[in-house]
Amino acid sequence: MALTPEQQDEVERLRSQSYATRRASVPALEEILYTPLPVLDHGFVRVIDYMGDDAAVVQAARVSYGRGTKRVQEDRGLIRYLIRHRHTTPFEMCEIKFHIKLPIFVARQWIRHRTANVNEYSGRYSVMDREFYIPAPEHLAAQSRSNRQGRDRVLQGQEAAEVLEMLKRDAAQSYATYECMLNETDDGSQLDRGREGLARELARMNLPVNFYTQWYWKCDLHNLLHFLSLRADSHAQYEIRAYAETILQAVKRWVPLTAEAYDDYVAGGLHLSRQAALVVRRLIGGEEVEQAESGLSSREWRELMQALGR
Amino acid sequence: MALTPEQQDEVERLRSQSYATRRASVPALEEILYTPLPVLDHGFVRVIDYMGDDAAVVQAARVSYGRGTKRVQEDRGLIRYLIRHRHTTPFEMCEIKFHIKLPIFVARQWIRHRTANVNEYSGRYSVMDREFYIPAPEHLAAQSRSNRQGRDRVLQGQEAAEVLEMLKRDAAQSYATYECMLNETDDGSQLDRGREGLARELARMNLPVNFYTQWYWKCDLHNLLHFLSLRADSHAQYEIRAYAETILQAVKRWVPLTAEAYDDYVAGGLHLSRQAALVVRRLIGGEEVEQAESGLSSREWRELMQALGR
Amino acid sequence: MALTPEQQDEVERLRSQSYATRRASVPALEEILYTPLPVLDHGFVRVIDYMGDDAAVVQAARVSYGRGTKRVQEDRGLIRYLIRHRHTTPFEMCEIKFHIKLPIFVARQWIRHRTANVNEYSGRYSVMDREFYIPAPEHLAAQSRSNRQGRDRVLQGQEAAEVLEMLKRDAAQSYATYECMLNETDDGSQLDRGREGLARELARMNLPVNFYTQWYWKCDLHNLLHFLSLRADSHAQYEIRAYAETILQAVKRWVPLTAEAYDDYVAGGLHLSRQAALVVRRLIGGEEVEQAESGLSSREWRELMQALGR
Amino acid sequence: MALTPEQQDEVERLRSQSYATRRASVPALEEILYTPLPVLDHGFVRVIDYMGDDAAVVQAARVSYGRGTKRVQEDRGLIRYLIRHRHTTPFEMCEIKFHIKLPIFVARQWIRHRTANVNEYSGRYSVMDREFYIPAPEHLAAQSRSNRQGRDRVLQGQEAAEVLEMLKRDAAQSYATYECMLNETDDGSQLDRGREGLARELARMNLPVNFYTQWYWKCDLHNLLHFLSLRADSHAQYEIRAYAETILQAVKRWVPLTAEAYDDYVAGGLHLSRQAALVVRRLIGGEEVEQAESGLSSREWRELMQALGR
Repeated sequence: MALTPEQQDEVERLRSQSYATRRASVPALEEILYTPLPVLDHGFVRVIDYMGDDAAVVQAARVSYGRGTKRVQEDRGLIRYLIRHRHTTPFEMCEIKFHIKLPIFVARQWIRHRTANVNEYSGRYSVMDREFYIPAPEHLAAQSRSNRQGRDRVLQGQEAAEVLEMLKRDAAQSYATYECMLNETDDGSQLDRGREGLARELARMNLPVNFYTQWYWKCDLHNLLHFLSLRADSHAQYEIRAYAETILQAVKRWVPLTAEAYDDYVAGGLHLSRQAALVVRRLIGGEEVEQAESGLSSREWRELMQALGR
Repeated sequence: MALTPEQQDEVERLRSQSYATRRASVPALEEILYTPLPVLDHGFVRVIDYMGDDAAVVQAARVSYGRGTKRVQEDRGLIRYLIRHRHTTPFEMCEIKFHIKLPIFVARQWIRHRTANVNEYSGRYSVMDREFYIPAPEHLAAQSRSNRQGRDRVLQGQEAAEVLEMLKRDAAQSYATYECMLNETDDGSQLDRGREGLARELARMNLPVNFYTQWYWKCDLHNLLHFLSLRADSHAQYEIRAYAETILQAVKRWVPLTAEAYDDYVAGGLHLSRQAALVVRRLIGGEEVEQAESGLSSREWRELMQALGR
Repeated sequence: MALTPEQQDEVERLRSQSYATRRASVPALEEILYTPLPVLDHGFVRVIDYMGDDAAVVQAARVSYGRGTKRVQEDRGLIRYLIRHRHTTPFEMCEIKFHIKLPIFVARQWIRHRTANVNEYSGRYSVMDREFYIPAPEHLAAQSRSNRQGRDRVLQGQEAAEVLEMLKRDAAQSYATYECMLNETDDGSQLDRGREGLARELARMNLPVNFYTQWYWKCDLHNLLHFLSLRADSHAQYEIRAYAETILQAVKRWVPLTAEAYDDYVAGGLHLSRQAALVVRRLIGGEEVEQAESGLSSREWRELMQALGR
Repeated sequence: MALTPEQQDEVERLRSQSYATRRASVPALEEILYTPLPVLDHGFVRVIDYMGDDAAVVQAARVSYGRGTKRVQEDRGLIRYLIRHRHTTPFEMCEIKFHIKLPIFVARQWIRHRTANVNEYSGRYSVMDREFYIPAPEHLAAQSRSNRQGRDRVLQGQEAAEVLEMLKRDAAQSYATYECMLNETDDGSQLDRGREGLARELARMNLPVNFYTQWYWKCDLHNLLHFLSLRADSHAQYEIRAYAETILQAVKRWVPLTAEAYDDYVAGGLHLSRQAALVVRRLIGGEEVEQAESGLSSREWRELMQALGR
């Protein structure tokens, strides 16, 4: 996570300012405002702005003139009720904005969440930075045999070393070609006086998807929780999960009651199909149940037994 | 616009508070925060919260680390460029939240704008207030003969008086029936000990669409400008236009550079079809052009001539 | 559900036509195409058009060149997998369009589902029909004491009769006033030569929300299932549930494999919070568990015990 | 555009089938259904399914029971009226679905249009094809000096040859590394018995953004026209414009009246700011107007004069 000295100064300048506001404010989130929280080898998440707090959820749910009750216990109960019964609209009344630096292949997964606002750094308009993602050795995993979409054990020794070497070599080579085609340096002057230089919008096509891009990303709290439920989940690819987990930490600072309810009902919840619920009822009743007669596939059965701690 | 004394106290309490924040803040908008701005006979618009300012648009457009340039003239130029070229995403980076009291028939038009967040007062859950909209005499217009969707001249004398009388009478009657069916008073006790009282979700079906409802409504700046371009327009029904114009005043306080660009390029702009553009070119060249050979319908021709001040 | 003879002819004409198409087609849904399926006293749901079928879900999930496998068993397995793991995007690849006639208060709940396309009959432009919803006696329920949003037992005898009488009387009165203010008959001629007639967009404000409106409503299959999960649910108000259940019948004709998976995993599923899941594990292990030490509120405990059949 | 023989057979099989339907059908679009329309060097657009036609727009605008008027002239007039007055919702009642093969950098621009449904080929799950985009020599343009986002004249001779050579070399090298890291062949067997092979979701990070991906993409007609207005425009990057223009040809087959209105009012239209409209009025009145006193920037002035043919 390399900010230039100018960028660091800019961040410091913003953090040193203070304004008076009548708006709902959250000191625990203000503490980390603008600060880059590191993710992966060169990425970050910065909270840039926010609107609302736990009380704003309550206020909207009640369409009240004030700002939620003073009694935190009542607010907590209402927030849990709303999450439990999927009354999602009050959570849309809070909004948060991030500045994020992330590899292109992570950005491609992320952008599938459509109910958000995005401004991305433009490779048509500007020269891309020479920064690319190389996995830490402990994340260099083999293809899973059982799950076509997953990872298995971590690569070791010579194979791991060779993969890391190849990734670095190709990224360096791709960027060198990019610069050569552009025929320009960072300050916009030509490398080689005799050549035109390829248009930026074309030259960038040579860069692999592990190069970093960055964007402003703004989302309401309901859709953010939905994003987290999919991307902070163990089925998500590790690299996007690393971002989701960093964002989750910011959410806990911002709306602690909502984050707690989300953890109890969504992240930590268990969803049973009609057939699985029937199995559970029979098990509680003391019956023996076999997969073959359960109406569950063997995979569903295995997942259910695991979830039930058997 | 009748706030109860409790509601007024609540508003005053909120307005008297001040917090320190590192977030972008707009003093001109803070001035009116939480204050009900009256619309129609009993409605209002209250700004409840906001995120971002003109500089936040610039910041997102540049995906920069700081907060827009210090040089207002540069920010202004960029904002005008963005509006002119329909680069709409940076305007999505600002967000505003309103508490609005409005007649149901206005709410029904308003809700068609889907890219917004809404929490409405629930007639299933709570008893509706006895408040309904009666047009001011100067807005009691006859049906337009030329435009099936429009109004014509204002009703006068006996006819106007009778219409106002009928509207009031039916609204009062509907609400009296509503209360009688509910069999409950505002404090939840029964009117008439012997009866059950109809469920609120059923009883409300007797209320006409000029009764007031209220909601929290949150929208990003891009979609808000789109809302204004349709609803602060002369083709919009007067009643929703009254709300749009009040909101436009708040937008001018909030993001003055954006509001100015919107006014020059969108609200005050003129859109010409391919055929109309050709007519304009010929007129500038000094040619005489007739509707018959212009490729424009007579209605389009009339509108074009009017727009060109001929 | 009163179609005029002209409308019935129109429906018959459409149903008598047949075109050759290369598109995925579903005979069971074609059977009811254009036919009004009655709902409530005057409402209906008509399927007007559709795109895709179960195989189209499979095709999109595999981004394949063909139309899903021939082996229905494999398609079924994949569709169940997609629903179970919330891979929702393939279901967005099917689309359905309805023409619906419904009371305004139902339309107001319905329209909160924003990810759909709507064209509603315009009371600004056209005269509203004299049709309003009066509940059948068996749906005339009292306000629930335990659930502020629910109904309790059905009203009986004199009270029920009076409520029905009042609803009919006020609706008739409101419409008579509407016509009088409009000063126009259905064919557009004036009732009373001496008067202007109030603009339609104003006169309609006198109509209660039990009057019928109608719209075209188009939705993709994923968002339709979400709509059904909320509106065909026992927490939904009876009147909108009646529409949802009619739509569910059409969905079963259209995409039977998806409808089955939806029924098993969503409609018939059971969601446990982290605390509830722990209670279940302990019960299966043969422990006694008390509400007080469960981490569940007494209401959550009651709902859990009921769901577990205890 | 290389379909495998299996894929070609699949396409032929689909095209040879015919079903009877009561739905609105468009023979001119059926003609090209499923057929890949080539774009760039290896890409294509295939129309997979559609819902509605020009008459469906009219039907929704009128919320009518039938299928639009028989008199095409009236439908045409209404469609032009709807486009002119931005009554966009009736156009949302038509839907179209494409299968598209496109370079990743084009996909990254495309996906910014959020009001659409997408299923993309997954590089987590499947091995990516060895296909990448290399511009035709006539599109190998230099960076524009005047427009940071644009292209200038086409590269010539040695420089062009070198750029093409570098692009091909790096793409081949990246894919070779990808295969080596995967340690698997297309049929899933290992290349090299002794190694595990890197997980697919990791190995793909080595591929540049000129590699082809593919997706199913579904969109309603209103949002498709918006997409075309931005992406079939001269400001769009050539590569995405090539796709937009191919789609526009399909739209002309599908909804010819809508396509004509779009061309006259949107694609061929001219938008004037408040200041530009004033300049036009003065020019028509025979005045001389100078940029300095026009209120337009020199760039806006230049664009206006060009649009007016001066």
